[in-house]
Amino acid sequence: MAGMTTSTAPRLLLGPGPSNVHPRVLAAMARPLLGHLDPAFLALADDAQDRLRRLFGTVNALTIPLAATGSGGMEACLANLLEPGDAAVVGVAGVFGERMCEVATRIGARVTRVEAEPGTALDDSAMAEAIARVRPRLVAFVHAETSTGVLQPVAQIAAAARAGGALVVLDCVTSLGGLPVSLDTWGIDAAYSAAQKCLSCPPGLSPASFGPRALARVRERSRPVQSWYFDVSLLAAYYGTERIYHHTAPISAIYGLVEALRLVEEEGLPTRFERHRRAAERLVAGLAPLGFSPLVAPGSRLPMLTSVTLPEAVRAQGESALRRRLLDRHGIEVGGGLGTLAGRIWRIGLMGENAREAVVDRLLAALHTELSAG
Amino acid sequence: MAGMTTSTAPRLLLGPGPSNVHPRVLAAMARPLLGHLDPAFLALADDAQDRLRRLFGTVNALTIPLAATGSGGMEACLANLLEPGDAAVVGVAGVFGERMCEVATRIGARVTRVEAEPGTALDDSAMAEAIARVRPRLVAFVHAETSTGVLQPVAQIAAAARAGGALVVLDCVTSLGGLPVSLDTWGIDAAYSAAQKCLSCPPGLSPASFGPRALARVRERSRPVQSWYFDVSLLAAYYGTERIYHHTAPISAIYGLVEALRLVEEEGLPTRFERHRRAAERLVAGLAPLGFSPLVAPGSRLPMLTSVTLPEAVRAQGESALRRRLLDRHGIEVGGGLGTLAGRIWRIGLMGENAREAVVDRLLAALHTELSAG
Repeated sequence: MAGMTTSTAPRLLLGPGPSNVHPRVLAAMARPLLGHLDPAFLALADDAQDRLRRLFGTVNALTIPLAATGSGGMEACLANLLEPGDAAVVGVAGVFGERMCEVATRIGARVTRVEAEPGTALDDSAMAEAIARVRPRLVAFVHAETSTGVLQPVAQIAAAARAGGALVVLDCVTSLGGLPVSLDTWGIDAAYSAAQKCLSCPPGLSPASFGPRALARVRERSRPVQSWYFDVSLLAAYYGTERIYHHTAPISAIYGLVEALRLVEEEGLPTRFERHRRAAERLVAGLAPLGFSPLVAPGSRLPMLTSVTLPEAVRAQGESALRRRLLDRHGIEVGGGLGTLAGRIWRIGLMGENAREAVVDRLLAALHTELSAG
Repeated sequence: MAGMTTSTAPRLLLGPGPSNVHPRVLAAMARPLLGHLDPAFLALADDAQDRLRRLFGTVNALTIPLAATGSGGMEACLANLLEPGDAAVVGVAGVFGERMCEVATRIGARVTRVEAEPGTALDDSAMAEAIARVRPRLVAFVHAETSTGVLQPVAQIAAAARAGGALVVLDCVTSLGGLPVSLDTWGIDAAYSAAQKCLSCPPGLSPASFGPRALARVRERSRPVQSWYFDVSLLAAYYGTERIYHHTAPISAIYGLVEALRLVEEEGLPTRFERHRRAAERLVAGLAPLGFSPLVAPGSRLPMLTSVTLPEAVRAQGESALRRRLLDRHGIEVGGGLGTLAGRIWRIGLMGENAREAVVDRLLAALHTELSAG
């Protein structure tokens, strides 16, 4: 188009997010704007909320797209539900559990960490033991840990938290749209996700949901939420029936989100989840002969994000050099390791639009070419 | 397009923002995604920073698009530069000065307010007196107050603040791109804007700039910034040379911003500012025979946002009913009053793409039709 001077070839985005965006979503983002108080836009915002409720498995009234990325959603959940001095138990099975500790600590919470070895899930009984010992105000953990590719079973930890009288916050950044999420069945009080993973939207929105126990906790706070921007009481006054202006809603991004949620519902959740499962299976099988081994045991593996340890041939030439060749020669982005796993693993995302066997085959062919050339 | 079922007619957005978006910007938003660590995207993010520096009138290295709306930019500036117990002097000439007080108070600052009558600018000497008396850590005020349409002269208040050893934070939400902004000449330490006003982008990005004294203050903090999401040290590590992942940058929105900044530079700032001035002049002249009077005295009037008191004929039929008819019958959105001015004024925005005489004439014609029909 006029003015866009970059000649970058299209990318196949197989890192930990963003994923590629469906043309219908891109087209929706390019629609002319409506005002954020226009009845036609408010109807669309209501539609987004309805569709997000179905996807999150909840009847929570306050289920909205926050005007921030997934990390902003994390901060919104923790900043509303924690006050300085509150005790929190946080499950740490990777970088994003770690980030929850950091965010909660900055809010002034007293954080008890329960750690898992990288590549493994949290131990239910260790979480239950910490909850019984600390009697925290809040328990937080990650459903799909994007830094390791580990799936965390939710029900037992959530049950232990509720039995201990704690609120439960769940990170659904990478799971939502690629794995079943059932906030109400599990007893989750607040959850957040991100648009650019299995929903295949551009980054910049964090779908989030707050249940009645969470909102009661906010009403009972002894001081206002530190963050005015993320204060759910103010957000509820806009996204609810009062329509009181808070900040200007991110109109174009919400256009895109609604279109992406339509695509999800047209496909149907069971079909979509099965598509993610099959793509991951094909990836693991195809990588084995090349010497890439899954970091995570079969029962704990995420479908939408596969972490693999690297064959000697890749480590020898420098894993980042090979990732750069995949990008430059084949237009394919895969992710490196984060934190202690940097340089040791790759993270290969097959999220949303990209969870397809043809996509897997394109990556495998490119890897074959590069590794036989090297 | 497929799937978009709404049949809403295009809107002419003449409220306090968002404004209408140029087709080139909409087309840029619809480009396929690059990853947030892709060298091609990082080059585009650097380009955005260069263009924002020129527009803000600054050489500040950390001049970036925050992944939030303008209110998020306000929170980012205040949360980084204030610690609990710090004294702040805030100029309050409307809702957005009020919001600064609220945000600073939640951070734990001791806020001294200096107020102006609605529709008037802050009094330099009252600000200087408060600064001399309180000796604050920080002085904050609004360049273009979106709730009243008042232009605030910046230089003298900023000079008084710096003479008193305070950091200066300036809200440029509505001014940037429609009025000259010269952070370095004025001596501003941190400033924020919003994409959906005179830059004519969709809402969801807050261009912001942090100078060396602001960053030194952040380094000297006794405790971490309460907000992990808005912590400028972490943002600097991504947008600077280190390229350390913080949150996922809002890729599509940055595509749109860069295209909008190209449009600004192709037009040239003097031409653009003059276009805003001429459009406002035509609006005020055209509204007078209809009985709408400017709220603000000529020397303090904003060009991009004109607030007008309402003629008896409009008050009698209900001002919101008339705004609704403008929207439903003519596709034109104008803004109502906020706060104490609700029901008493309209706010008519001629921002960015909409600051054109033909746009003014379209609004005036619609008003003539409705008021002669009523």
